[in-house]
Amino acid sequence: MYILHIANKNYSSWSLRPWILLRQLDIAFDEEMHPFQADIQAQREQFLAFSPSAKVPVLQDGQTVVWDSLAIAEYLAEAHAGVWPDDRAARAWARAASCEMHSGFAHLRERCTMNCAVRARPKTVTAPLQADIERINTLFNEGLSRFGGPFLGGATFTAVDAMFAPVIFRIQTYGLPMQGAAADYVARMLALSGMQQWYAQALQEREIDEAHEQDVGRYSDIIADERQK
Amino acid sequence: MYILHIANKNYSSWSLRPWILLRQLDIAFDEEMHPFQADIQAQREQFLAFSPSAKVPVLQDGQTVVWDSLAIAEYLAEAHAGVWPDDRAARAWARAASCEMHSGFAHLRERCTMNCAVRARPKTVTAPLQADIERINTLFNEGLSRFGGPFLGGATFTAVDAMFAPVIFRIQTYGLPMQGAAADYVARMLALSGMQQWYAQALQEREIDEAHEQDVGRYSDIIADERQK
Ligand SMILES: N[C@@H](CCC(=O)N[C@@H](CS)C(=O)NCC(=O)O)C(=O)O
Ligand SMILES: N[C@@H](CCC(=O)N[C@@H](CS)C(=O)NCC(=O)O)C(=O)O
Repeated sequence: MYILHIANKNYSSWSLRPWILLRQLDIAFDEEMHPFQADIQAQREQFLAFSPSAKVPVLQDGQTVVWDSLAIAEYLAEAHAGVWPDDRAARAWARAASCEMHSGFAHLRERCTMNCAVRARPKTVTAPLQADIERINTLFNEGLSRFGGPFLGGATFTAVDAMFAPVIFRIQTYGLPMQGAAADYVARMLALSGMQQWYAQALQEREIDEAHEQDVGRYSDIIADERQK
Repeated sequence: MYILHIANKNYSSWSLRPWILLRQLDIAFDEEMHPFQADIQAQREQFLAFSPSAKVPVLQDGQTVVWDSLAIAEYLAEAHAGVWPDDRAARAWARAASCEMHSGFAHLRERCTMNCAVRARPKTVTAPLQADIERINTLFNEGLSRFGGPFLGGATFTAVDAMFAPVIFRIQTYGLPMQGAAADYVARMLALSGMQQWYAQALQEREIDEAHEQDVGRYSDIIADERQK
């Protein structure tokens, strides 16, 4: 049985990627949650016990340890059908879009950190943040129109949808504007059973990490917290 | 024939990755060099003509456009043998290490930007830069010892060596300390015909980008410039 090591569901955007991929593809796995810690050095030591980079997510498959979300997708693709789109052009696009997410969108990631439970509005939409939001809209609308939807790479949920899943929660948290088919896609993603399960578990989480909570208020005005309802 | 769009060989670390992979695997391709421009907006428009993200590298294969270095490796792996190690454990490790490079090492990338021609010494080795250098040593020594060398994933040059190729030039430029087998690996990489060709072409390049040149002096003392010899 695969073991997936993750951090807090409310905050850990990278953890969500392989988790939702396994979940939507119905691949069995056990999960182990390692909460973020206020003491960075203590967290580092705790994470190093299972992760060579001291980061989550990590997939453990017997003796094999895969310590990055995108590498986990490729590892799973070797053993399971449906991880990437079947069509070669869709697959090339899906991988390039996934890589762009993996190494980019620095402004979106810094100024709109993932916090599933909170609702907030950016104090200022800076030009680089605006460019990131526009690029997300372009990518979503391009994938949906080129490969026919309802998912980014075509008819089924694949790794490219998983790579953008944390962006979907950010769009909900910060009310980021989505145009056309991209807006419907966001609603469709939020309605997936895996996304609903992750969200419900994020709301129930008792491990609160103050640093992650404060990241939201630095750049945004908080308007609601779904954990308090 | 594949077309690989790249930027200046002296500076463009991401461009080097697919270039050296194609070159060392003896896969035929044409290259198109698009020099960085002082006017960011003009550069963006020039890059957008072939790159959906306005970044290099881009691989063009007929109608298919792949706009990220790691996505290019996976695209090539579908059509050519030897892109990743044959052994499954080595392949999982190689992909995780490649992904760690693709999304990480922010301090090394910022403070020791690629400039093949220059020799410089960091003014200060900050703790996060030191951590990046140590992690590179650990990764290199781990790959070499686990899979038997002389390359990171075993007997042949694969995509993981390509992903770390720009780090090899950085080690040379900034004199970064390498321990044990990792030091020999760096020397071996620098001696590869593809690396020597890239380096020679970088030295001959007439397109100088002032912003990239100044990045070196911000954090390091320049001690030599091989272009002036
Ligand atoms: N490129 C990695 C990124 C992993 C990452 O940054 N994870 C964060 C949590 S979402 C982490 O573990 N941070 C802890 C730290 O940096 O100390 C991936 O795709 O898995
Ligand atoms: N994740 C991308 C990164 C590409 C990248 O950042 N390329 C740089 C040059 S080395 C670039 O095109 N910069 C131009 C810009 O950002 O405007 C990849 O792996 O290909």
